Amino acid sequence: MPVDVLKALANDRRLHILDWLKDPTRHFPPQVDGDLEQDGVCALFIAEKLGMSQPSAGEHLKVLSQAGLIQGRRIKQWVFYRRDERRIAEVRGLLAEL
Amino acid sequence: MPVDVLKALANDRRLHILDWLKDPTRHFPPQVDGDLEQDGVCALFIAEKLGMSQPSAGEHLKVLSQAGLIQGRRIKQWVFYRRDERRIAEVRGLLAEL
Repeated sequence: MPVDVLKALANDRRLHILDWLKDPTRHFPPQVDGDLEQDGVCALFIAEKLGMSQPSAGEHLKVLSQAGLIQGRRIKQWVFYRRDERRIAEVRGLLAEL
Repeated sequence: MPVDVLKALANDRRLHILDWLKDPTRHFPPQVDGDLEQDGVCALFIAEKLGMSQPSAGEHLKVLSQAGLIQGRRIKQWVFYRRDERRIAEVRGLLAEL
């Protein structure tokens, strides 16, 4: 069992991010650069929705990325995040063996 | 999603305890008081298998108990622990919605 993934999940804000990214159109405004569904959600929007500074939100995004649960993609000067559904399915499988 | 349960799970030693308690007979020696399968495993045996002092092991057992993942039962001066399979199944269900 990957303890690091569990640690990444064991935080309300990170669970919210994962949940919001399931349905970006519902949770975030349209973006000028980067399609919400295709390219992911700009880190700025995620920070705003969390009500956190960019660096603090960035820490949470980093933890989720390092656990492989989301993937970031740079477009111009921004990073856009999407869920990594393959990895999340893998984690669900592992957790099913609890 | 219950963050407290994820925090309880996000620890190698606690994951080991949960795993050992799936099949106590395989992982622990027979007990004089309390049947391994019926009554659970004595906290002393769990501490020994973890290679930890009783108070340190007790902390992990407390976290798991508070999250509802295991249940303790006092017999004489000892506490015996079993998995709470109903609660664990509930948690698996929640994690399946990740």
